[in-house]
Parts: sequence; C-alpha cells; structure tokens
Amino acid sequence: MSKSLDVCLTPALIPLYNVPDYIVVVIDIFRATSSISYGIENGAEAIIPVAEVEECAAYREKGVDYLLAAERNGEVVDGFDFGNSPFSYTKDKVAGKTIVLTTTNGTHALHLSRSAKKVVIGSFFNLRALCNWLKTQQQNILLVCSGWKNNFNLEDSLFAGAVVEQLKSEGFKLDDPAIAANDLYQLGKNDIGQYLSKTSHGERLKKLGIEKDIEFCLQIDLTTAIPVLEGERLVKLVK
Amino acid sequence: MSKSLDVCLTPALIPLYNVPDYIVVVIDIFRATSSISYGIENGAEAIIPVAEVEECAAYREKGVDYLLAAERNGEVVDGFDFGNSPFSYTKDKVAGKTIVLTTTNGTHALHLSRSAKKVVIGSFFNLRALCNWLKTQQQNILLVCSGWKNNFNLEDSLFAGAVVEQLKSEGFKLDDPAIAANDLYQLGKNDIGQYLSKTSHGERLKKLGIEKDIEFCLQIDLTTAIPVLEGERLVKLVK
Repeated sequence: MSKSLDVCLTPALIPLYNVPDYIVVVIDIFRATSSISYGIENGAEAIIPVAEVEECAAYREKGVDYLLAAERNGEVVDGFDFGNSPFSYTKDKVAGKTIVLTTTNGTHALHLSRSAKKVVIGSFFNLRALCNWLKTQQQNILLVCSGWKNNFNLEDSLFAGAVVEQLKSEGFKLDDPAIAANDLYQLGKNDIGQYLSKTSHGERLKKLGIEKDIEFCLQIDLTTAIPVLEGERLVKLVK
Repeated sequence: MSKSLDVCLTPALIPLYNVPDYIVVVIDIFRATSSISYGIENGAEAIIPVAEVEECAAYREKGVDYLLAAERNGEVVDGFDFGNSPFSYTKDKVAGKTIVLTTTNGTHALHLSRSAKKVVIGSFFNLRALCNWLKTQQQNILLVCSGWKNNFNLEDSLFAGAVVEQLKSEGFKLDDPAIAANDLYQLGKNDIGQYLSKTSHGERLKKLGIEKDIEFCLQIDLTTAIPVLEGERLVKLVK
C-alpha cells in the first residue's frame, strides 16, 4: 500500500483529513514558518506558538526571560518585542532564547494539526533539508497551508507544490490538491517572486512595507534545521 | 470600485464569503451541473435539487409526474428513475418534465449558495452563454466549486478557471483562488480530458465505468440555456 502525500489548502479543510494518520508540515511562507525556521536555525532554544495575543502577553507574567512576538494583520502588536519579520530572528537576538509567537494564520494551522504523528515546520529556507528528512520517514504526509483567514493563498500552495516536486518520485499517492499545488509550482518556479507579485496577499503585504521580508522569505535552502512541535514548543528536530 | 470575481474552491469554504453580495455560479462538472445544463436545454420544465435521497423519494408520494434522480458515490440509487449521467437528460426523456435530483456534491453546494443575489448553473456545455450573461450583470461573481466530499477537485476548479479566462479582461478584481484556477486552466486547456485523467477523482470515476459521461461533459458550448434557481427549482433563465 503506497503512502499518501496530501495537501490541505487551508486550515478550514483540516477536518477533512484524519490528522493522526500523518506527519504534518505546517506552511505559512509570509511569514510565520519562515521566521520559525530561521529562528530555530539561529539557535533559539524554542518557539512557542500561541493562538491569541492575550495568551502571548500572559507569558510576560511568568517571570522567565521570554521574547514575545505578536502580530495581527501583518503588523507588530504594541508593547511586544517583535512580530513576524524573519529579520527579528537573527542569532544575536534569539540564540538561547525562548520566543512566544502568535500570528494570524500560521499558529491557527499549527494548533489544528496537533494530533498528527509529528508536526514540523516548512519554508523555502529549509526546503531540501525538510524533503530529505520526509523521504526517510515512510509515513503519510499532509502539507497544511495556513492560507489567509482560512482561505487559499498562492504562496503557501506554491511551496506545498515545491515539496511535492521533491517527493513525487518516491511512490506517494497524490490527492487532487497536491497535483494542483505541484502544477502551480511548475508555473512559478522560475521566478517565484514575480509569480507571487500578482496575488492579492502579496499586494496587501507590499502596502505594509515588507517587500524586503517577502524577498528574504523566498530564499531557498538557506537553513537546514527542521523545527518540530514537542508538547507546546517548537524545537530543533534531532535527525 | 471594481467588482470581485472570486472562486470558492470547496463548499466548506462558502462561509468565508458573504454570499448575498454575489451572483453565484455552482459548478459540479462530473456530473450534476453538466446534467442540469443539458436537461434544461432539452426542455425540462424544472429540476429540483434536494440534499437527501429520502427527500427525493418523498416526491414520489406527491402524486405528480416527477422524474426522480438520485445518486450516491457515483451510482444510481436503487428504485430511482435515473442518476447523474447527462445521457439520461435527453429531449425524449425530460422535455416538459420536472426532475427531482439529489447528488453527492453539487446539491450540497447549491443549498449553501441559496442566499446569493442569483444562483446559476455552470458547465462546459454552457460556458460561453454563461460568461456572456455574467458580463452584462455588473455584479460581484462567486464561482462555487462543488468539489469532492467538501474538498478541492481539479475538474471544477479548472472550469472556474475557464470562466475567469473569459471574464478577466472585464475589470474584475480576482482573489487568489481565482488566479490559481485560471493558471490551472492555462495548463489544461489544450486537452482538458488528458489533463484531468491524472486526477484521483477521474481515476475513481473511471472505475465506475463512466468514461463516456466524462468525455461528454467536457464538450464546450454545446448548449445555451442557463439554469437559474427560483425558489426551490432550477429553471431556464429568461435572458
């Protein structure tokens, strides 16, 4: 019986999958999972994803040296250390630290994926490292796109298609969304930034002045760490 | 303010849209909306979509000369006049008749779209007629893909992309799913049958021995009637 490689195009569709059957890869390219990959690569001890800004703020009271990251609608929430920009997750800022992170879409997808065999984090940064590890697992794989407000977005689907591209020769059975994501990746792969510039989300993010973040997040194979969910914390997977 | 042309990739995502703002086009290429288009073109007085087989069977008691069509998982339900094959909706069978229809996916999408300004039926059969009419409406348009068991399927999304192709030069604002659907259509348009043959759904339908239905449903501009929902009945739109 061949293993399945499925793509869940938005968190709203997660209930259609029997999550405990899968290793789940959570994808939120702009920018949560890119920043998480980058932060763990740069020595963050752990990143704790939480759903609500209030939940994040509560960690301030716990008397430990947490960094608090909160973003809503693409902007840092007042009074927090930083938001979702990967440039905040450099070695000098995050090495040895634990970061509590809440974001609009990525954290939502992570929480809904908790019952999986394993939950790992995918981004263009760790594409090859992630795919190489997935190839060795002999498990069904579900790529969960965080999307935008529970709906489909192009950048997460395109990345899912990039993962499908590296895994499809391994004998997996693909579902329709996986086929579509891979086809979209074929269309965009030669210039992903250019391809995504036509999306509504890209346009919206541009208005927020984070073109540099977007360009940065589209760099492929910049890192090798795979963040994995252990309990409530994302830590570096020991391969 | 430009109008929106949005694509809802599965019925599970309908709650993300404010349906009363739109004209909705319901799409279930294999085979409900193809059969409905064909049946209305061939003179069916009305087609009544219902959600449950039991609801369909109840019309038998009403003492009127209804034709009852019921299908579950791609097969005619025992004791019903016919199922979902467009070949059942020929002139000699349906002219002047009212058909009560329940299907796995299409009826579900129709019911969830009821609050729209208008609900019309799309298929490759009436592609040009539908698009020409939509161009004259000056309304936001939501293309609702019926999908497969609430998830994404390629054939409905590809058809949505064909509609986007004809409307995108009319100044609509496209959402990300509309852009993706149109891109998939670009990949598939030269040989839609060939493109779809790789899908999981196509494979499943092939196993049921309905390749002929599939081939038939991919004919473009075979009809000009646009079925529209009036109350509980789909009837021919008076243009």
